[in-house]
Amino acid sequence: MRLAVDVMGGDHAPDAILDGCKQFLESDSFSDAELLLFGEEAALKRFAEENTALMNRVHTVATTEVIGFDESPTAAYKKKKDSSMVRAFESVKAGEADCVVSAGSTGALLTGATLTLRRQKGVKRPAIATLLPTTTGGCVLLLDCGANTDCKPGYLQQFAIMGKAYMEKVTGIENPKIALLSNGTEAEKGNALTKEAHERLSAMPDIQFVGNAEARELMSGNFDVLVCDGFDGNVLLKGFEGAAKVILGLLKESLYSSIRGKIGGLIAKPAFSTVRKKLDYKEYGGAPLLGVNGGVIKAHGSSDRRAIYNALRQAHTWVKSDLVTAIGESISNTEIAED
Amino acid sequence: MRLAVDVMGGDHAPDAILDGCKQFLESDSFSDAELLLFGEEAALKRFAEENTALMNRVHTVATTEVIGFDESPTAAYKKKKDSSMVRAFESVKAGEADCVVSAGSTGALLTGATLTLRRQKGVKRPAIATLLPTTTGGCVLLLDCGANTDCKPGYLQQFAIMGKAYMEKVTGIENPKIALLSNGTEAEKGNALTKEAHERLSAMPDIQFVGNAEARELMSGNFDVLVCDGFDGNVLLKGFEGAAKVILGLLKESLYSSIRGKIGGLIAKPAFSTVRKKLDYKEYGGAPLLGVNGGVIKAHGSSDRRAIYNALRQAHTWVKSDLVTAIGESISNTEIAED
Repeated sequence: MRLAVDVMGGDHAPDAILDGCKQFLESDSFSDAELLLFGEEAALKRFAEENTALMNRVHTVATTEVIGFDESPTAAYKKKKDSSMVRAFESVKAGEADCVVSAGSTGALLTGATLTLRRQKGVKRPAIATLLPTTTGGCVLLLDCGANTDCKPGYLQQFAIMGKAYMEKVTGIENPKIALLSNGTEAEKGNALTKEAHERLSAMPDIQFVGNAEARELMSGNFDVLVCDGFDGNVLLKGFEGAAKVILGLLKESLYSSIRGKIGGLIAKPAFSTVRKKLDYKEYGGAPLLGVNGGVIKAHGSSDRRAIYNALRQAHTWVKSDLVTAIGESISNTEIAED
Repeated sequence: MRLAVDVMGGDHAPDAILDGCKQFLESDSFSDAELLLFGEEAALKRFAEENTALMNRVHTVATTEVIGFDESPTAAYKKKKDSSMVRAFESVKAGEADCVVSAGSTGALLTGATLTLRRQKGVKRPAIATLLPTTTGGCVLLLDCGANTDCKPGYLQQFAIMGKAYMEKVTGIENPKIALLSNGTEAEKGNALTKEAHERLSAMPDIQFVGNAEARELMSGNFDVLVCDGFDGNVLLKGFEGAAKVILGLLKESLYSSIRGKIGGLIAKPAFSTVRKKLDYKEYGGAPLLGVNGGVIKAHGSSDRRAIYNALRQAHTWVKSDLVTAIGESISNTEIAED
């Protein structure tokens, strides 16, 4: 298999990206994978010189442009034909690679996925999914996390289908429990969108729909997939992120505000880092984009070496599992009422 | 002033409610307030016997029905004419009291507010607001937190107006900064609702609109009021609640999983309780319902004595500040385009 890496995407590109690639190439678990690196010539040259032993599984493609976080994603993607991201997508479209891995602009990545790779047959809207840990030691897939801010019930039905395929193929959870994000667990709770979606999901024979879930249940382990529109997914995800920051910050502050606290803090330090690690998105790789003709893994913009390594690991599993075919089949096997 | 208390509402009613009332009555700060207690005869009788010294500022009204959390709010409110909640609302409508305080069903409370007290002139939709702490030592008002799951841009404009009035009158923050919850800080980010609302809020001369805010900023102190539809407000609030539970739980777990941790845990214990206290909704009283003809404070369903005491304290400030009049004026002074 071949993974196309956007070496120039992300806050710490190109170094952190290339360090992650190095770690990936050095691991025995992925010896069946080759990397297609798209980025500025100098950086790629340096990488090649420093890692001669690995280069038999690396193909470098020098690119002259970079899509920044500050520019309009769609315009930039259309204009910068020789950018590392566009070239990476082109390589997957041309069949030279199976999956794009990028820590670049989410908007540009979405544009590339839909413009270059195009939606899979029957897919109404591609979705960005995020894998999160649960307190029961498992994981939960939240989608959509921001690709579609205004959704119709039919989109949410397909998010459920794609989420199910992902959990079965990539994480190996058979017949995952699907929940719908709402403002109450009762079936009658929700807004116009979720009420209609609830009815439709309840009527889908191939989905194990467990009903509405409240935001507070996100990491409860009560379900394997949580479906919502991209606006709410973003609110939930960033809300959680903010809460974690606030709480750990407050704890530290009050721990270190007293001598007794200082000692406690020092002793408790390992616990803090354990929790931080448990909650760290970097441990869980990137966010897969589901519903397009090819693999796309969006790594966090602030990805470091470890985050990129995990994103590549995830891309590897993705390609091995042939998720795209699986999604294509379940989508075409499921009839969705007009919205 | 007179506060009408629904003694039978909440998980710990009537005892926790009456204990909160006792504490409120015993405080010198509220000697200008009388309480109108609505609840089952036996409980009120016991309270009267045990607190003879306080009864000169207490009026008890025996009621025979209770609205439970499990029944359909609207139906229950319409049917149970002699319930503690309905009678409390009736007393405010009749001018016998100025504000309802209840830890009962939110849905029933909303029904009572709109059916019995009725919307203020010009108010499109009443909103439930929640006051939260910020990391900068201040507080932020989030609304709507669940009264309206499907909103129009005009509703959000009025939430901003009502939120501003609340912060100015009740917390004393002049010309508060108003932000709009969205999936990105840039003006062009958002869904159909927030994009339109953003434009409208930007054009309101009497509002200090600071633009879009992401969910992660909730407690940042970057703004004093955060406006959103009731569905997203619920997701944000409960998501935060869930995150706090998960994080503190994980920390405890890993702290106590090692001897070293155990010691650290014991020493760090005070810090934990400080943070819990800081994040505890009970400290901040209840959630005011804005936009109806009379005061309504919704205390958390699981309210204990302290939560009820704080809800009463909040009701006291509310009535003193004559918020209803202030909201009425700002609403009638602001033209809102048709949705």
